[in-house]
Amino acid sequence: MASVPRGLSDFLHRYIPEIEREMFEFLPIQEPEAFLYAPMRDYPDRGGKRFRPALVLLACQVFDGNMKNAVRTAAAFEMFQSFAVVHDDIEDDSEMRRGKPCLHKMHGTPLSINVGDALYAKVFEILNANRPLLGAEVALDLIEEMVNGSRETFEGQAYDVGWIRQQHIPSEEEFMVMLRKKTGWYTGRGPCTAGAIIAGASPELRETIGHFGEAMAIAFQIRDDLLNLSTSEQDASVAPGLTSGAYGKERGGDIAEGKRTLIIIDLLRKCAESEKAEVLSILHEERQKNTAEQIERVIALVEEYGCIEYAEEVCRAKALESQQYLEKIPQSAGRDILAEMLDFLVQRAF
Amino acid sequence: MASVPRGLSDFLHRYIPEIEREMFEFLPIQEPEAFLYAPMRDYPDRGGKRFRPALVLLACQVFDGNMKNAVRTAAAFEMFQSFAVVHDDIEDDSEMRRGKPCLHKMHGTPLSINVGDALYAKVFEILNANRPLLGAEVALDLIEEMVNGSRETFEGQAYDVGWIRQQHIPSEEEFMVMLRKKTGWYTGRGPCTAGAIIAGASPELRETIGHFGEAMAIAFQIRDDLLNLSTSEQDASVAPGLTSGAYGKERGGDIAEGKRTLIIIDLLRKCAESEKAEVLSILHEERQKNTAEQIERVIALVEEYGCIEYAEEVCRAKALESQQYLEKIPQSAGRDILAEMLDFLVQRAF
Repeated sequence: MASVPRGLSDFLHRYIPEIEREMFEFLPIQEPEAFLYAPMRDYPDRGGKRFRPALVLLACQVFDGNMKNAVRTAAAFEMFQSFAVVHDDIEDDSEMRRGKPCLHKMHGTPLSINVGDALYAKVFEILNANRPLLGAEVALDLIEEMVNGSRETFEGQAYDVGWIRQQHIPSEEEFMVMLRKKTGWYTGRGPCTAGAIIAGASPELRETIGHFGEAMAIAFQIRDDLLNLSTSEQDASVAPGLTSGAYGKERGGDIAEGKRTLIIIDLLRKCAESEKAEVLSILHEERQKNTAEQIERVIALVEEYGCIEYAEEVCRAKALESQQYLEKIPQSAGRDILAEMLDFLVQRAF
Repeated sequence: MASVPRGLSDFLHRYIPEIEREMFEFLPIQEPEAFLYAPMRDYPDRGGKRFRPALVLLACQVFDGNMKNAVRTAAAFEMFQSFAVVHDDIEDDSEMRRGKPCLHKMHGTPLSINVGDALYAKVFEILNANRPLLGAEVALDLIEEMVNGSRETFEGQAYDVGWIRQQHIPSEEEFMVMLRKKTGWYTGRGPCTAGAIIAGASPELRETIGHFGEAMAIAFQIRDDLLNLSTSEQDASVAPGLTSGAYGKERGGDIAEGKRTLIIIDLLRKCAESEKAEVLSILHEERQKNTAEQIERVIALVEEYGCIEYAEEVCRAKALESQQYLEKIPQSAGRDILAEMLDFLVQRAF
């Protein structure tokens, strides 16, 4: 697969070091180091392409904002991502994150819950530190965006985790609501809206770029779920940044976790009753008890029933929706880079 | 034991319903109800004397602030308490909270982590809603207080949980640092400082009432740990409000959890080597594997070595320290009620 497009690549090379510097300023090495501050730095240290914070800067640039004013808020979004995946990995009892054991596999669940809490508090610490930079009103507008978006994220997560607990298979409609809430805000709408707020864009333009980001994030997550079925080292090199964690995870890990994905929902409405019973029993089993053969069996069914093609189709439609929102925003160098990001993250895959 | 003193009792009867109304306004019943919004209301619904939010109002009153302006922030502190105990119960794998099964025993760990996260987000949602009431600057001052205090809490929790994981027995000095961080802020210093901020008190007076609250909270926690060894239905009726959870918990539950308390630290430095080995093996065992006989054996040693008297002495000294800070604050009706609270929560016990 191709490398990162030139405009986007230049942008990331220029601004990501600043964002990372800002983020790590808020992650000092101090006591209690072993139990808190070292593990807090672990996920942020594992790297990534930092597309979410880049989105904050790009959305600011698109509306002629001063990108220097957006670096701090960008760091807050990257911190939110670290918090969210620490708790998500515990909730899913995941094994690996970016090729290394998940935090709770290294430090146990009690310490890791607390590390996640502390990372979430850092998000608000960073946003509060916007005050001297942006003034109290804008600082609070950004906190409000974070609070409202957090609510969406936790609602989405409640569906995702609750369905596993209740052994409920959602309809496609239910699934899309969950995806919009769980991922749409914090991977797309949130960073884009925040950048627009910092630039002082009108409420209408905030909405438009928010829709752009949300549709891109949803498309990206569907693609991420697709990649989970074909993960290989080669794929892992493509875009290790904006992902809920397929890369560095085991192939079919989502199936082992019993995760509801569009692919699985599509399979369950297409396959024969006997196959459905088989797939459900694998999904409902504890992840450790599923064998590699069982996972491969589900993947074979997914391929047989054309569920990959179906998910690709939905992904493509969402990417198109995203593109259409982007076109409503006045042309600028920043908009070109956003278009490249959309193309790179989602559209180029097909 | 005596009932709540008259002035304090009148105050609580008058203001707690307002605080609860405010808090539940931020806890709507909506979808996803079963997986999120119903469990979010569970701990707040289990009641309590609501001493923490009452402290916010009293600290505001003491400095001639308008208590109406403090109700919302008081609700935020009660919400923080609910968040903290949801995660704390998971981290300690506790069984019971206020006489009912802990949230994660009812809904599982994954959903309950997410419920806690959503409650923590509510804290900032409430504080952000202070903006029309108090203006952006004061609203941010309160968010800053919450952020800084949260950091203390998570640092304290990191020690508490980390020591169990590392099988480390802290010195009394280490223990007191942990207690100040884990409990001192959110049970005492935080609510008092917030009330003083709302009233517009000087930085010096904020500090003074903060110290008062912190010392009271530490004394109270030590007393709470003492009660955990003697919990009975009768005790449970005394002060079910300002507690990290002794009431409605099983006698000696702290010992079963391996919790480091002043009592246990004192025992381990006083008892014979063979007894020390015995106590440590019980502390380090998983809580389910400890028998009632083992717990009673530890309690018997605690009594034999005078560790209860020692903890009472430290508690009394902290209560005195708290009283001395209170006396530095100008006399008022509110101060009298704070003195009653200190007396009721800690001093009257001895």
